[in-house]
Amino acid sequence: MPAQRMIDMNADIGESFGAYRIGSDAALLKIISSANVACGFHAGDPAIMAQTCEAAAAQGVAVGAHPGYPDLQGFGRRAMTLSAGEIEAVVAYQVGALQAIAARAGTRVAHVKAHGALYNAAERDRDVADAIARSVRSVDESLILVAAAGSAMAEAADRHGLRFAGEGFPDRTYDDDGHLLSRALPGSVILDPVLAAENARRMAIEGTVETIGGRKIKADIRTLCVHGDVPGAVSIASAIRAMLESKGVSVVPLPALFH
Amino acid sequence: MPAQRMIDMNADIGESFGAYRIGSDAALLKIISSANVACGFHAGDPAIMAQTCEAAAAQGVAVGAHPGYPDLQGFGRRAMTLSAGEIEAVVAYQVGALQAIAARAGTRVAHVKAHGALYNAAERDRDVADAIARSVRSVDESLILVAAAGSAMAEAADRHGLRFAGEGFPDRTYDDDGHLLSRALPGSVILDPVLAAENARRMAIEGTVETIGGRKIKADIRTLCVHGDVPGAVSIASAIRAMLESKGVSVVPLPALFH
Amino acid sequence: MPAQRMIDMNADIGESFGAYRIGSDAALLKIISSANVACGFHAGDPAIMAQTCEAAAAQGVAVGAHPGYPDLQGFGRRAMTLSAGEIEAVVAYQVGALQAIAARAGTRVAHVKAHGALYNAAERDRDVADAIARSVRSVDESLILVAAAGSAMAEAADRHGLRFAGEGFPDRTYDDDGHLLSRALPGSVILDPVLAAENARRMAIEGTVETIGGRKIKADIRTLCVHGDVPGAVSIASAIRAMLESKGVSVVPLPALFH
Amino acid sequence: MPAQRMIDMNADIGESFGAYRIGSDAALLKIISSANVACGFHAGDPAIMAQTCEAAAAQGVAVGAHPGYPDLQGFGRRAMTLSAGEIEAVVAYQVGALQAIAARAGTRVAHVKAHGALYNAAERDRDVADAIARSVRSVDESLILVAAAGSAMAEAADRHGLRFAGEGFPDRTYDDDGHLLSRALPGSVILDPVLAAENARRMAIEGTVETIGGRKIKADIRTLCVHGDVPGAVSIASAIRAMLESKGVSVVPLPALFH
Repeated sequence: MPAQRMIDMNADIGESFGAYRIGSDAALLKIISSANVACGFHAGDPAIMAQTCEAAAAQGVAVGAHPGYPDLQGFGRRAMTLSAGEIEAVVAYQVGALQAIAARAGTRVAHVKAHGALYNAAERDRDVADAIARSVRSVDESLILVAAAGSAMAEAADRHGLRFAGEGFPDRTYDDDGHLLSRALPGSVILDPVLAAENARRMAIEGTVETIGGRKIKADIRTLCVHGDVPGAVSIASAIRAMLESKGVSVVPLPALFH
Repeated sequence: MPAQRMIDMNADIGESFGAYRIGSDAALLKIISSANVACGFHAGDPAIMAQTCEAAAAQGVAVGAHPGYPDLQGFGRRAMTLSAGEIEAVVAYQVGALQAIAARAGTRVAHVKAHGALYNAAERDRDVADAIARSVRSVDESLILVAAAGSAMAEAADRHGLRFAGEGFPDRTYDDDGHLLSRALPGSVILDPVLAAENARRMAIEGTVETIGGRKIKADIRTLCVHGDVPGAVSIASAIRAMLESKGVSVVPLPALFH
Repeated sequence: MPAQRMIDMNADIGESFGAYRIGSDAALLKIISSANVACGFHAGDPAIMAQTCEAAAAQGVAVGAHPGYPDLQGFGRRAMTLSAGEIEAVVAYQVGALQAIAARAGTRVAHVKAHGALYNAAERDRDVADAIARSVRSVDESLILVAAAGSAMAEAADRHGLRFAGEGFPDRTYDDDGHLLSRALPGSVILDPVLAAENARRMAIEGTVETIGGRKIKADIRTLCVHGDVPGAVSIASAIRAMLESKGVSVVPLPALFH
Repeated sequence: MPAQRMIDMNADIGESFGAYRIGSDAALLKIISSANVACGFHAGDPAIMAQTCEAAAAQGVAVGAHPGYPDLQGFGRRAMTLSAGEIEAVVAYQVGALQAIAARAGTRVAHVKAHGALYNAAERDRDVADAIARSVRSVDESLILVAAAGSAMAEAADRHGLRFAGEGFPDRTYDDDGHLLSRALPGSVILDPVLAAENARRMAIEGTVETIGGRKIKADIRTLCVHGDVPGAVSIASAIRAMLESKGVSVVPLPALFH
């Protein structure tokens, strides 16, 4: 089977904290193949991480670390200015914490995807991206980095000899430069499962992203990011998976893509 | 060389946080053989942990995890009621975080010693001790647990098949039951280097602890805990090391004791 | 109108945090007359507190501070050992923070009710209760303390010259000593609105609590605590309010009870 | 006595946290007339705040709130992107918390000065400055705002009808635009007490700042900021006070300047 007939589906999981519950983890874990698990800085806590790893392992979903800024109050979505050394340390810390929690659940951390404002910084800031890549490599060089295809993070993964999986967002609108349309703009989030599924098909089979202006841009997408945090999001994820399977695309965890 | 001619010396290290500095790490790292590194819950932060692991590795000092309650304001010294599941999760989280940070510094976590109120709870509460042992074993069964000889923690290590190193406190006074005299009582902390060094000799060579009433109690002590947080503490640690070496006792990291 | 024909209804409000939502605040604010607002230590954050005070003010609901232990991960429900001085400081801090937030919303803090494990400690531990009363008095001697009738907190309020409002729990079962039956026991939480409303009537009009064994115990109850955190809880609160009004009992904010 | 013959001296105080000690509070409190007290977000904790207010009150030093970003690990020095609403809430929260703590110590909050990265943002960002001014005004319109003379914060204070005290930094070098020279540059921090004292004299008596290029810029400076966090800083503060007094300038708390 040719390589392009396999793709991963990832989602942010385990974002509850203490008494607080958020997300649709149980439903998403039946759909996705890789879970980005919050590591206690912007969301998640040790007990939630343990439950999340156990649930992912039970569903055969691979787990990845989803490190963020130390900003629980802002859910890691507020930009913060950390030095490269601080970023290296906080990423390693969070990845390691999840590795231990995952080992207890009989699974292992397969990938790393930065969260929120850290993800955004790593998309365009080479210093931030390098700090993340350096940190991940020093902890475990077999870890796969996940970020937007074509981002500074992609280049940093390459520079540091890490495997990289570019991700696409089938439930988001892209502008004509191939970037995500700002969430502040109308139409940025796609709520129609049919449209999202068609985007997923195009990303997985044609290897292209269609922009708001109708352009088709080539993109090496290995994993599709889906969501569980807005109404209807799980239905969209479901529709995406159904579309992929109907077209003969296998949804497999990230490590299976790199064999 | 008979086993009793080797002993480990441990101290709590890396307890700074952000802009805050505490302790005498540089001086202690020249004296001890094992460092208990704070893991970010009661003290320490990712950047401090990284610096601490690097400094320990540079001195040939083995590193261990020093997990505590999530209570930075109370320095982990305030009793907290966590469920067994919560304890398992917070211990695994902290151990894993340090493992990743240690790996980056070219070293590895060799032992685990609970901090403060968690240490105290594990000394007498079987459920807490079991939770810690279970957590440590599930993360890495080669880790060595450190706690007071004869404590609930010692028994739990045994039940869970973990290696255990009983520790003695040469700069503290023991009551006639073989427990540490409360810090609230006069004379509980020994400030005289000569007395402390003599206690260390007795623990290392005779395998006994002398109590406040003059009793000698047998104790299987593999590691001597020294301090850097009070005036004169480093001198005491130094005097202890000099005494041990003058009596032909080698000060070696914990893993060397279990070969 | 005689004093016994007025009573307050209180509930814990504003327990959301950052991106996390919890509780049924909007619905409860239409039913209750006093809101216990979380102050950022065990739940709540400055922005949530601001929204909560605005919503309470818009509904004519009086606000009170609901200080807890600094334990967001445990939602303030885990016992912690704080010194009397620490308790005084953390209570004053939280009360003051809410006073400023309330002032901005055009309202003011009228009462203080400890949360979770701090509430439980203050119920039976005189030192803790005294620390809370001392702290509250030093911040604003017009504040009304709320706690279980007959608790150590009630006595401390008296000793420190603070007004006190004993509270009853119409949706909880009392044991034959007049204490709440442990939540761990079956039947401890009353899910039947009719039973809860009858308990409320008895507390408000007869001034008695009926125990699990059928005893009736006198209790000076000025405020009824209702909940929004379990399914059906809002319906129970509604049924209680309807019962009180049908019996001619006015539901009024705490300050109105002390005129 | 003409108004220009009085000036305030302020310093950041109470920046310890839990077991961590930082600064030279006792020495500075003998020199300054206004203390900027950390409020628990970037430094300080409720118990430290209480001790600090008591110490300030005992020395006749006025207290002010020193609110910062919620970033203990970064000591509030890392830029963070908070919305205007978030800034309003976190500032009000911190000011109120200190008001209650100060009341217990028999004193009251007289001024507000933002800390670290929040101070820097308010210096040039009108939205941030307006949010702070709006928050402070809504809590207590008699509070005095402190910031660099000529900053966005000064303008915002004016727009919101708050009293404002421009501050000068006699132990720092100014560039030719009248801004502080970056700490990253050599010579930015003045270590010579004689030079610092001369700068203080010029600010207090001539109402000018001398720049690195020798220009003299007019500046309405009501308070001189001194430091306690670097070696020699207390001596510099002392020299500044001695110089002022030798020239007949009274060092008085901020409120005394606005009578």
